[in-house]
Amino acid sequence: MLRLRRHHYPDHHRRILLRLFHHSTFHPQPLDLPLCHPTYQIWSANTSLGKTLVSAGLSSSFLLSPASSANKKFVYLKPIQTGYPHDSDSRFLFTKLPSLSLRRKFPSSLILSNSILFSSLFAAKSFLSSRDLPFQPEKFNSEMYDLNFREENRISGEEDSSVSELVCKTLFAWEEAVSPHLAAERESGGVVGDSKVIETLGKCLRDGLESEIERGKREILCIVETAGGVASPGPSGSLQCDLYRPFRLPGILVGDGRLGGISGTISAYESLKLRGYDVVAVVFEDHGLVNEVPLMSYLRNRVPVLVLPPLPQDSSNDLMEWFDESHNVFDSLKNIMLLAYSERIQRLCDMPKRAGELFWWPFTQHKLVPEEAVTVIDSRCGENFSVYQDQKNKFIGQQFDACASWWTQGPDATLQIELARDMGYTAARFGHVMFPENVYEPALECAELLLQGVGKGWASRAYFSDNGSTAIEIALKMAFRKFSFDHDVLVDFLGKDTTEKCVELKVLALKGSYHGDTLGAMEAQAPSPYTGFLQQPWYSGRGLFLDPPTVFMYNSKWILSLPELLYSEIVEHKDITFCSRDEIFYEERDSSELASIYSSYISQNLLQNPGLKVSGCIGALIIEPVVHAAGGMHMVDPLFQRILVKECQNHKIPVIFDEVFTGFWRLGVETTADLLGCVPDIACYGKLLTGGVIPLAATLATNAVFDSFVGDSKLKALLHGHSYSAHALGCAAAAKSIKWFKDPQTNHNIIPERRILRELWDLDLIQQISSHRTVQRVVALGTLCAIELQAAGCNAGYGSLYAASLLKKLREDGVYMRPLGNVIYLMCGPCSSPEVCSQLLLKLYQRLEEFDKVEEKLKSC
Amino acid sequence: MLRLRRHHYPDHHRRILLRLFHHSTFHPQPLDLPLCHPTYQIWSANTSLGKTLVSAGLSSSFLLSPASSANKKFVYLKPIQTGYPHDSDSRFLFTKLPSLSLRRKFPSSLILSNSILFSSLFAAKSFLSSRDLPFQPEKFNSEMYDLNFREENRISGEEDSSVSELVCKTLFAWEEAVSPHLAAERESGGVVGDSKVIETLGKCLRDGLESEIERGKREILCIVETAGGVASPGPSGSLQCDLYRPFRLPGILVGDGRLGGISGTISAYESLKLRGYDVVAVVFEDHGLVNEVPLMSYLRNRVPVLVLPPLPQDSSNDLMEWFDESHNVFDSLKNIMLLAYSERIQRLCDMPKRAGELFWWPFTQHKLVPEEAVTVIDSRCGENFSVYQDQKNKFIGQQFDACASWWTQGPDATLQIELARDMGYTAARFGHVMFPENVYEPALECAELLLQGVGKGWASRAYFSDNGSTAIEIALKMAFRKFSFDHDVLVDFLGKDTTEKCVELKVLALKGSYHGDTLGAMEAQAPSPYTGFLQQPWYSGRGLFLDPPTVFMYNSKWILSLPELLYSEIVEHKDITFCSRDEIFYEERDSSELASIYSSYISQNLLQNPGLKVSGCIGALIIEPVVHAAGGMHMVDPLFQRILVKECQNHKIPVIFDEVFTGFWRLGVETTADLLGCVPDIACYGKLLTGGVIPLAATLATNAVFDSFVGDSKLKALLHGHSYSAHALGCAAAAKSIKWFKDPQTNHNIIPERRILRELWDLDLIQQISSHRTVQRVVALGTLCAIELQAAGCNAGYGSLYAASLLKKLREDGVYMRPLGNVIYLMCGPCSSPEVCSQLLLKLYQRLEEFDKVEEKLKSC
Repeated sequence: MLRLRRHHYPDHHRRILLRLFHHSTFHPQPLDLPLCHPTYQIWSANTSLGKTLVSAGLSSSFLLSPASSANKKFVYLKPIQTGYPHDSDSRFLFTKLPSLSLRRKFPSSLILSNSILFSSLFAAKSFLSSRDLPFQPEKFNSEMYDLNFREENRISGEEDSSVSELVCKTLFAWEEAVSPHLAAERESGGVVGDSKVIETLGKCLRDGLESEIERGKREILCIVETAGGVASPGPSGSLQCDLYRPFRLPGILVGDGRLGGISGTISAYESLKLRGYDVVAVVFEDHGLVNEVPLMSYLRNRVPVLVLPPLPQDSSNDLMEWFDESHNVFDSLKNIMLLAYSERIQRLCDMPKRAGELFWWPFTQHKLVPEEAVTVIDSRCGENFSVYQDQKNKFIGQQFDACASWWTQGPDATLQIELARDMGYTAARFGHVMFPENVYEPALECAELLLQGVGKGWASRAYFSDNGSTAIEIALKMAFRKFSFDHDVLVDFLGKDTTEKCVELKVLALKGSYHGDTLGAMEAQAPSPYTGFLQQPWYSGRGLFLDPPTVFMYNSKWILSLPELLYSEIVEHKDITFCSRDEIFYEERDSSELASIYSSYISQNLLQNPGLKVSGCIGALIIEPVVHAAGGMHMVDPLFQRILVKECQNHKIPVIFDEVFTGFWRLGVETTADLLGCVPDIACYGKLLTGGVIPLAATLATNAVFDSFVGDSKLKALLHGHSYSAHALGCAAAAKSIKWFKDPQTNHNIIPERRILRELWDLDLIQQISSHRTVQRVVALGTLCAIELQAAGCNAGYGSLYAASLLKKLREDGVYMRPLGNVIYLMCGPCSSPEVCSQLLLKLYQRLEEFDKVEEKLKSC
Repeated sequence: MLRLRRHHYPDHHRRILLRLFHHSTFHPQPLDLPLCHPTYQIWSANTSLGKTLVSAGLSSSFLLSPASSANKKFVYLKPIQTGYPHDSDSRFLFTKLPSLSLRRKFPSSLILSNSILFSSLFAAKSFLSSRDLPFQPEKFNSEMYDLNFREENRISGEEDSSVSELVCKTLFAWEEAVSPHLAAERESGGVVGDSKVIETLGKCLRDGLESEIERGKREILCIVETAGGVASPGPSGSLQCDLYRPFRLPGILVGDGRLGGISGTISAYESLKLRGYDVVAVVFEDHGLVNEVPLMSYLRNRVPVLVLPPLPQDSSNDLMEWFDESHNVFDSLKNIMLLAYSERIQRLCDMPKRAGELFWWPFTQHKLVPEEAVTVIDSRCGENFSVYQDQKNKFIGQQFDACASWWTQGPDATLQIELARDMGYTAARFGHVMFPENVYEPALECAELLLQGVGKGWASRAYFSDNGSTAIEIALKMAFRKFSFDHDVLVDFLGKDTTEKCVELKVLALKGSYHGDTLGAMEAQAPSPYTGFLQQPWYSGRGLFLDPPTVFMYNSKWILSLPELLYSEIVEHKDITFCSRDEIFYEERDSSELASIYSSYISQNLLQNPGLKVSGCIGALIIEPVVHAAGGMHMVDPLFQRILVKECQNHKIPVIFDEVFTGFWRLGVETTADLLGCVPDIACYGKLLTGGVIPLAATLATNAVFDSFVGDSKLKALLHGHSYSAHALGCAAAAKSIKWFKDPQTNHNIIPERRILRELWDLDLIQQISSHRTVQRVVALGTLCAIELQAAGCNAGYGSLYAASLLKKLREDGVYMRPLGNVIYLMCGPCSSPEVCSQLLLKLYQRLEEFDKVEEKLKSC
């Protein structure tokens, strides 16, 4: 099927596209972290505990060990330096190492360099005047002075064949000897943002590496030294442990050997753990208090603790003797670091194989997943995975989690860290405690927020379970009881044998909807290969399944697509289009001709299953409001669903909203009841409920539903529960996330007065894609942008193949997507910035174009 | 039914029982914490940051405010003091307040006292000689010198009608000015254990309170000041933040206003959060660095940050002016503390009502739970709940979680804190990430530990889900596929319509077993009121359900009870007893006559459902090995289950072990396969899998089962998955707990060479209980001690009523149990000390005796 294509690139898109095309996809991304050699971050429990001495000691141990082969390189990076130029840690290493080299009689040649990249105006002037260098104002931009100073030194050794190298760099420097956030604020107006720091650091970490690797196997050790304590603010005010988190470099913690130092060291360690860092060793200066004993006990001997000899009291001491005394400690430390590095790499390399051998992945045909297709996720930071890649060179790259990890994800990096602290707190305060007949703060707060939020105006009870599927099973039990209660199925039930089957209850559901994988939830969906004997021998399909009308964007227009039954009935309506997406949701449509057609279609179907018959009657309506997710990201005409809900409620059939996917801003609103303009009797939540950190589900219900379970007998109560019902961690995560997502202070996407998210997907670009030759339909709503691909001959099988290879390419671009057959989608979080969303969309567009060209070329051959 | 009773109290039990009888149940327990007035703990980010100045400032603000009515009491407790008597923080308050009182022209009278309870020999001698007091060696025991010194002071005010009071106490003192763990080790041999410290503190917190309350509404503020930093070790070496955790007092954090102090303050705050503490305010001395700005930003303005004026440099300064300058800050701090206290109490009071209005508890008839029956759980610490109680006086009491919160719990207090840190770390490192086709460390480590542990020797794949019920549904799908594969049900399935039903598959299961609440899991259990139309209209019971033989202790003997079918067949066996519990598990029984009777009974039943019939054939065996938990804690004869397993495996019927309850040491072994002496094809785990902190479930399978899902089509794969499959937090908790429970270093109950837990329940006492007139049977195995009560006329209804009132009394004794009808049980964790278990058992025994007497009395009337 060939369609006319309109190529109307708006100018600004052309520009962005051009920029993107020029940025080859194989170039490293700003946060790519090389792993071909060890890189460690030096942290400290407090300021002035000797981080730089540890760095210097390591450089000496690494470069000057007589036993080691020369031809090594030690890279020392100091991203943030205050008190400059008086204090310069990179210069300390640059000047100390030659003396140590002479003292150790290092036989090989040694090349040393020290650079300073950017500094504040004050620091720059002070530095230049101290060196009698001229000040060049043109190098001063609004941010920082582009100092780019470099000094070198070379010590010729006896053995001239091998050369070792020390590279020292200070990335950003300020003059005042205060916390970086103060210095930056006072000297550079606080304009050095977090992204600037980590992009510059990333560049330095990758600097010259390609040529290094070409030059052969030179051993490299890289150290990134922080400023102050682990949670000291960086120039933007962000804590350093948060600022550097995207790299998640393994750490060395310089502890405190003084009185009170055990506490400070342990707390610093815990702050690092609370950001997901690994610490491979703790090292501190001896003050005669044997602080190592309680530290080792706390660490259960799993992290080595090393003790450095006491420093000389005299500040004019050149420390040469101290370095001599410390030599063995630094050797041990270096060996620990090298060993931890090689063990880590070995583990990362082995992981795909181990995974393929031990895991049984859900929804996965293992035979179709070769070892090299397994993604090794080293960590996540906000919306991004850090993925270990072992291509030309080992590195850790960033991939945007555009599948939102099975549609669960919401946190940005800040929320993730807040959730981590809350998880630690809640586990320490509660662990898990028994729920029935009890109350504890997280469960109560979560219930309050649910009933004031998504359940506002209709729900009055919260029932907790573990996942969407169990929430649905509970909802069905609630609905059937309510129905039986309303329709006198259960007159005097306690007198009867309750095991007796009264009537055969069915659900009314829509074709293409999906409610979970446990048997009860599966029974509420229409037959499909997923429900067949091969998968679920006990499935029978206990429902009446209606074919719904859907809407989508095609060729820049929103179009209504009617099911065949309706289609034949109302031919004149087959070309209904909408001017905008908003129009689809207008409640004015209730009085349209289409509304009455829908209404009679639904009534007819309900009449076929009227009232109570022993052979089967409809005891519940269950819908996924607005979007059928697993069924292929189909947007159902909300008018149709609204009428369906009202018809059922008129017949006293309880209505269940399955908001497991659609709830909590997934579609741009907290609850889709707001989009549909009607409320259910029962609704189910999961996935984004906890922000995406931990499983929890909730089934909300009206008081009328609840009342049908109240009585004098426990047997009338709802006897369904899971061990971790309303577990404290889940409820705490939910409480935090619910508040975070709807608070304009924390979620900048919220339009407060309208209780909706602003548009995250660029409309022009969406239209562009919907007009693309390879695209069959687009649904963009809230955090979702789904695209059905149209492959040659409308062959869905081919389409999925096409989708799979498209997504493979997109992973190279740093976008992690998963296909749903021939439907692909981008999914962000409620707090994701529209800028990031546009970048994702552009990358997708670029790959569509690329594939299109290849295909056309193939055709023309 | 009247039975002979043998009253043979062994002597040592008599002693324990006597002690227990004397200890009236209404006396406060060692850790009861009064809540009738605010009590706060003062923490500090480091040593020497002015905790005592804050305490003094608060005492002055609370007692000396002219606006406030007098007749107040300020209690200052310093549990741990080093550097004594030179340093005495309690004496500092005792001596400072009179000067401040004069300076403030405080109109009322003021009574002050300062006590010191215990000190080391060195500290005592030094103190006594400084006061010219004689040393009385008889007051010195192996631990500490019972100094019990008290000094008083009284300042008569103008208004003599009202009297305010300052009570200062130092609980334990050592002479050397070092960390308490060092001082205690050097001066008192490290014998002041954690329990000694907190029991003494608990006593001081409750001291004189009854008379206070009688005396009328005197306002009281109590402060407990820690030593050093938050994580500084106490006398035993335990970190203070861990040591004081059972009280979980709300805290004031004294921060650090110096350079580097932001980091130290934040880290200290995080260490407190990681132990479940609430911090209501941060306060620190100004050093001109505006540290409050980043601190407030970090705390998102949710915790107030207060800044004290700089201290005078001159150490001889009497600080009077500084206290004057600080007055407003201390007033604010005091008001924050009083407000936070009243808000907390209000919330705690309201919680039962709110819970009753908003929650929908599972398995609970709400009509039967009045507001006063709702338990408010303020926190948990190891095996204990901290429960808010609002009886005569408000307080927080401890209750041992003897229901193990629906059988999930395993952690002791140490593991709980380790898990909390791991949860924080894992949430920060991973949050949740997509599982299929991916690998990440916690999931891989968890799978490795499962397959090397409970799955050792048979399982080769781990399938993750969210709870026992979903794990069972997955297991059934696996088993049916394997069965269909082995029995050629699915010849050339891809060619067929996979929605077509090939055969009607059933499970073979035992009556009384229970596998979960979702429909698929319910179908595998025999009909009961829980499965009736009222509860689950879709249940049909897709199984062949056999009645199993059970074993239990009665009248000090283990007895076999046969099902009716077998009973009639083999009358001569009806009195089978066992000399010991171990004998029941002997594999030698395989060659007994009983074994062949079992075998033929099973074969007959299988033959009734032979091979493949369209009308229904048995596609899986599912059992709860050894103990039917929810069915009433019945121990099934393991010989019967072993033969059942073997017969099924001979018929190529896949065998599922439902180890959701029984796994991970619940029954004293990691896997009940070790008890049964045979292995399954598939096994399910949940509950204790994560140690009891977070939901996660796993289904393990053999390679042969896995292979029946391998093929070229995704449709042949197992298409069942939940959003949070193998979520990182769950896997991390499981990995930690699996290792913790089986490591003799961390679990002192492990008998390493036998891979079993030592006996946790005192056998004599168990026998005693099994011989009790009110007891019908006892099953004690591993962490479980279940007791079926026998009520008058064997009426189970009466029995449950009896059980309910018994358990109500036991809650007053600090034991939180839940009944299963007329079965009650104590359940501890794998690491619980046998001493604690014996205490629980004794309390239970005492209450049984008490109830028995009442009943006998009623009868005789």
